[in-house]
Amino acid sequence: MKMSRLLGLRFKETPADCRIQSHIFMTRGGYIKNVGNGIFSLFTPARRVARKIENIIREEMDRAGGQEVLLPVAMPAALWKESGRFDGVKSELVRFKDRGGNDMVLGMTHEEAVVHLARNTARSYADYPFMVYQIQTKFRDEPRARGGLIRAREFTMKDAYSFHTSQEDLEEYYRRCHGAYERIFSRVGIPEVISVRSDPGMMGGEIAHEFMLLADVGEDTVVLCGECDFRSNMETAECVVENEGGAATAALERAETPGVKSIADVCSFFSITAAQTCKAVLYRKGESGEPVIVFIRGDLEVNETKVRNFLKEDVRPDTESAPGGGIAPGFVGPVGLRAKAAVLYDRSLLGGRGMVCGANETGYHYAGFAPERDLPGAPVFRDFAKTREGALCPVCGKRSITVRNGIEVGNIFQLGTKYTASMNMQYVDANGAPQYPVMGCYGIGVGRLAASVCEVRRDGYGPIWPMSIAPWQVHICAIHADAAEVSERASKLYADLLEAGVEVLLDDRAVSAGVMFSDADLLGVPVRVTVSPKTCARGVIEVSARDKSFSNDVASTDAVKYLKDLVRSMLIRLAV
Amino acid sequence: MKMSRLLGLRFKETPADCRIQSHIFMTRGGYIKNVGNGIFSLFTPARRVARKIENIIREEMDRAGGQEVLLPVAMPAALWKESGRFDGVKSELVRFKDRGGNDMVLGMTHEEAVVHLARNTARSYADYPFMVYQIQTKFRDEPRARGGLIRAREFTMKDAYSFHTSQEDLEEYYRRCHGAYERIFSRVGIPEVISVRSDPGMMGGEIAHEFMLLADVGEDTVVLCGECDFRSNMETAECVVENEGGAATAALERAETPGVKSIADVCSFFSITAAQTCKAVLYRKGESGEPVIVFIRGDLEVNETKVRNFLKEDVRPDTESAPGGGIAPGFVGPVGLRAKAAVLYDRSLLGGRGMVCGANETGYHYAGFAPERDLPGAPVFRDFAKTREGALCPVCGKRSITVRNGIEVGNIFQLGTKYTASMNMQYVDANGAPQYPVMGCYGIGVGRLAASVCEVRRDGYGPIWPMSIAPWQVHICAIHADAAEVSERASKLYADLLEAGVEVLLDDRAVSAGVMFSDADLLGVPVRVTVSPKTCARGVIEVSARDKSFSNDVASTDAVKYLKDLVRSMLIRLAV
Repeated sequence: MKMSRLLGLRFKETPADCRIQSHIFMTRGGYIKNVGNGIFSLFTPARRVARKIENIIREEMDRAGGQEVLLPVAMPAALWKESGRFDGVKSELVRFKDRGGNDMVLGMTHEEAVVHLARNTARSYADYPFMVYQIQTKFRDEPRARGGLIRAREFTMKDAYSFHTSQEDLEEYYRRCHGAYERIFSRVGIPEVISVRSDPGMMGGEIAHEFMLLADVGEDTVVLCGECDFRSNMETAECVVENEGGAATAALERAETPGVKSIADVCSFFSITAAQTCKAVLYRKGESGEPVIVFIRGDLEVNETKVRNFLKEDVRPDTESAPGGGIAPGFVGPVGLRAKAAVLYDRSLLGGRGMVCGANETGYHYAGFAPERDLPGAPVFRDFAKTREGALCPVCGKRSITVRNGIEVGNIFQLGTKYTASMNMQYVDANGAPQYPVMGCYGIGVGRLAASVCEVRRDGYGPIWPMSIAPWQVHICAIHADAAEVSERASKLYADLLEAGVEVLLDDRAVSAGVMFSDADLLGVPVRVTVSPKTCARGVIEVSARDKSFSNDVASTDAVKYLKDLVRSMLIRLAV
Repeated sequence: MKMSRLLGLRFKETPADCRIQSHIFMTRGGYIKNVGNGIFSLFTPARRVARKIENIIREEMDRAGGQEVLLPVAMPAALWKESGRFDGVKSELVRFKDRGGNDMVLGMTHEEAVVHLARNTARSYADYPFMVYQIQTKFRDEPRARGGLIRAREFTMKDAYSFHTSQEDLEEYYRRCHGAYERIFSRVGIPEVISVRSDPGMMGGEIAHEFMLLADVGEDTVVLCGECDFRSNMETAECVVENEGGAATAALERAETPGVKSIADVCSFFSITAAQTCKAVLYRKGESGEPVIVFIRGDLEVNETKVRNFLKEDVRPDTESAPGGGIAPGFVGPVGLRAKAAVLYDRSLLGGRGMVCGANETGYHYAGFAPERDLPGAPVFRDFAKTREGALCPVCGKRSITVRNGIEVGNIFQLGTKYTASMNMQYVDANGAPQYPVMGCYGIGVGRLAASVCEVRRDGYGPIWPMSIAPWQVHICAIHADAAEVSERASKLYADLLEAGVEVLLDDRAVSAGVMFSDADLLGVPVRVTVSPKTCARGVIEVSARDKSFSNDVASTDAVKYLKDLVRSMLIRLAV
């Protein structure tokens, strides 16, 4: 490819709507163009990166025994009604009517479509297990599209689905796909991706993993132990904290606390730490609107996913009213509570002593609260808290939890029979009895993966693409291409490299060396070749790495072989 | 791939909703599954065929200087409002509202999106010419989806767009793309595809070509001259017919013709041929509803495209009323017509004598009609007729026109500045003046191309895929795979061929030879290998061609090399 024909502008200014570095570089480097909210066109450099990622994914899915299929983007809503998700999924799912007035949806995930494909087809236990995958456009009407390709509304995704006759077989295959994912992330140049247990959410099923690339700009929160192998995403991470407690013998004592509403107010008024307070966090159930009160140590946050999973119902923060029966929210407490509400106690209250909590009367708190002693009935303490930096590891028990931001670059789910049962996909087992197969599903967003690599493989000037997914392998800068010798040598090298099967970009434009080099930095091709009047005079070319790890003069006569070998050796480094 | 894991059923019965052979075989062979009206999922064999076609297209587009991009499937309607097509295109265009209430469309073609990508980017004449292409899912809400992948509502398409600073440059590039298309059709195994001039329709522009594969099931009509190179699609084909006429001196004479309404009635009543009648064909203009009457020789049909192009307005057959002022339609004639209507005269009336036409009074006709003598005013005769078998060739003049059915497997258009001007894409020319670039566009439907090849490369048992696009290259049938020797030899050959880079499918199922062979016929892999107790006893494998052109025994020890060479030689035959 010649730069003079390459569509796309490269420029210096940071675009106003770009917050993260990958979005900035992909915009400034002529990779993507915003078409609408969360909708992008890809220029050639991005399309080439994406296609290489797609091919790596395809190879690894094939190696894991997968067969590639293609499911529709636009589907009859009838399929989603069968699974119950037509009503279950909210406005992320685009719905429209076709010219015949039929309800249609745009696929944001394809469990329904793949069950439709496989049912009435894999009818005997002997047909199992099998895995199908596709690489395809999806549309998810995200309320908060952002970060360029990191979270777009329209995106290219590899989604795979496996079908099994037993949970054991699924688990074995799940491990195999876990391995395939590790190979994929290594091959695209980010072997540091970790997998963490996650919450299956709307996908259903019990066990799920997310593959996380640790990065400050990540929207997901990853919980890691610094001492052992424990890792989890925040939603599922168990929170273990200790209570130092106050005086063991303090009695529950009502105190007048006018205007003392927040935890900070309480701490200041009683001269205690937040860990010595018990706060009430108010929710309402999604369907019924019934109030829910979670009592939790004042220094911790409620993990709403845990509340949802326990109640098996959606909850939303209660912003309407105080469920404590007219009491100002800051004074709601677990002792003497008369509100009609589902009351949940977080495990962080276990062992607490001498705590302060609301007294269910505006302007009053209790001091000397010891939950196990003072709570009515036989309260059950469960884990509803978000863990945090410095908490105890639930596996090794050390005070070694760290919390990091991560980008979710892949996920895998054990779905059980949620879709096969609801959509009546059956096979006949060895005894002739009908059974529902169990399913696994496995996703990777192609564009998000490209942007994620950009986020962690870059310097101040642009991406540093790993050779395996770089838009081109070699970038020739012909400085002073108006000099006949430069133009001839660069053109010949370009033609010879193409002939040798090297993917090469030739900057043949009549622009300054400065513009050429800053454009080359933005395009991030791993190997750069400079041809200039000076190098021509010395009979060499200048070969340098985008990551600045080397810079050599190479005799022009050896150039093709040298570059071909260099590219190959850089590719081999990324092989697994 | 092993057949025991290949998803998809193969069966013998012709599905009720399949009318054409490619649709039947692709359904019976486990290639496609209908998800909704004109919406299909692709099983692995179809996905593999499609991917090979995509790769051939990609190589040829790259060779023609193209750069691959990716434009969105779902687009803000604002783009289509800019070009005027949001209102101009009817219900083929799917419209929906996103969660923010914004008007969106699903891309059925991407002129708007590509101009959005290129404008403000290619700002200098030095940036031209360039061509971008994509291979992507499109949705067109066809009123009559049919023929499986031949005319689906959702389909994968390669669409390319070129931009130029002059019409001459566009034409030069257009010829280059024409050549690229010929290479593509040759490489996928159907070199007999012909290109014909066509009508640009809603795409705009002046010059367009369709690439037609002649096939009885084709929905398009192709006009060919048996004596010279003239070819056209029906919509644009000039119609040239001669008039033998009746007696030169016959006078116009009013005749009572009660109940003589149709051309057949007239012929029978007056004992003349249809070519001696003049009929009125009634239309209404699409917007205003104003009546249009086309007078044409009674044996010819009106080519509505020519009427539309002449009026520069849509027309629809008039089924509401007789625009002849209350006269029954069969009696409308060009003499003494008092209706307020646009009146058009077809060229077939030129030289007509002694004709019969309606007399504009129910129950009466004129005989002895000579259009040039009897028509009021100074009538202009234009070409509004569909040509037909045996008409005169507009190029060589011989009575050698033949009419055939064809499948449109590709099209190319010269768009002019329709989109660049309406969407204000400009560049600065060498004199510093702003200009609109001229555009070309170039489409190929991937699934339709696969189905078209199937339509013309098959026998009574299934497709005979050309090696270049076959789902696999070699298909091993292990007959009696329960015999240890068969199973071992077949498995070893399978592994060795995979190792040698051959794409191989192994039928390892415990089914009869009959089932294996009929399934192999449906999968259409060009080379079949049979391993059976008999071949094992003789130390050979049986190698045969799907097209029955050869069948050989090959020593097992030579099998891998033999097959690898065979595949290569069959590929070379398709290279161009």
